[in-house]
Amino acid sequence: MTQVRATNIVWHEGHVGRDQREALLNQKGALIWLTGLPSSGKSTVAFTVEHALVERGRLAYVLDGDNIRHGLNKNLGFSAEDRAENIRRIGEVGKLFADAGFITMSSFISPYREDRDEVRALMDEGDFFEVFIDTPLAICEKRDPKGLYKKARSGEISNFTGISDPYEIPENPELIIKTAECTPQEAALQIIELLEVRDKISAVPE
Amino acid sequence: MTQVRATNIVWHEGHVGRDQREALLNQKGALIWLTGLPSSGKSTVAFTVEHALVERGRLAYVLDGDNIRHGLNKNLGFSAEDRAENIRRIGEVGKLFADAGFITMSSFISPYREDRDEVRALMDEGDFFEVFIDTPLAICEKRDPKGLYKKARSGEISNFTGISDPYEIPENPELIIKTAECTPQEAALQIIELLEVRDKISAVPE
Repeated sequence: MTQVRATNIVWHEGHVGRDQREALLNQKGALIWLTGLPSSGKSTVAFTVEHALVERGRLAYVLDGDNIRHGLNKNLGFSAEDRAENIRRIGEVGKLFADAGFITMSSFISPYREDRDEVRALMDEGDFFEVFIDTPLAICEKRDPKGLYKKARSGEISNFTGISDPYEIPENPELIIKTAECTPQEAALQIIELLEVRDKISAVPE
Repeated sequence: MTQVRATNIVWHEGHVGRDQREALLNQKGALIWLTGLPSSGKSTVAFTVEHALVERGRLAYVLDGDNIRHGLNKNLGFSAEDRAENIRRIGEVGKLFADAGFITMSSFISPYREDRDEVRALMDEGDFFEVFIDTPLAICEKRDPKGLYKKARSGEISNFTGISDPYEIPENPELIIKTAECTPQEAALQIIELLEVRDKISAVPE
């Protein structure tokens, strides 16, 4: 039995090509890098895109604090060096996921331009989409679902992006989403349409 | 146009469930951890399984020195501490890939039992398959495609697993593959059949 079934298996010396997985998945790998202030809406936009894509039969995955900070990056703190290494590792994992054929979204504040540009530089041409979730500080601070802005204002938390630490606005992002001026659905759709225009997924009539 | 198409998009606050991706992919995520001496045949077995699965329409991905050592783990050396961190990070990436629904294979010597057991411990129950590529040292040393054993014997390379550094044999691996006693095709098939038996992929008649 083993010998009969084994006849179809050919001995290989190297990786399956990315194009073969992409043909199988009917999509092309990408890393959508969401950046913005705390409470700007990054994760909710990411999750909504993820659900919408999976409902269309496309494969998507979100990298965020939940699955990265408590896993791969649990041995990193919040020093400048560790923050840079945090972003670098996320970028490298995003590169692996894109190579695997996934539409990957990362949802991290990633306040420093240099760190984001380094991720862009390590990705293959056309795989990296920097999306600036451009929500005014006043709105983020009003949302404040975890009470972090309040703690930052009172000095209970130091080095808080937007209050006591800088956020460096992206200079040439692939997309800017102003969550104060559009519905959540429209925000998600902007990313999906970008993926269609850039030929990462085919446009699906609804 | 945007508003019309957006009506099908529902606002979400959390990750897509692993089961939804697995239903889409018609497979279940897993991490096949190949361990064994240098030149024991780990990567070639991994690549052969990867190709065979993708040809069957299943999604597989190999983590190895090519895509890990020059990327995510390029800032690690070969000290005991760095070797442990190397394996830990690969385990965490394998966990993300399994969560994403991939049949993931890792191909690293991973000589220390403690490091491998730590990866097993961080994975979800039933997701981790330790596969011992059990090739006698004499055969590995005879193959020696990169001339590394020769350099280790002459002292040109120090801390070489199997020669000047220990390899700790797995005590309870899910599978032992003796490459000296089977064809490459049979080796690959043993892993594929393990995945079928453990309900990670459905058996496909050939």
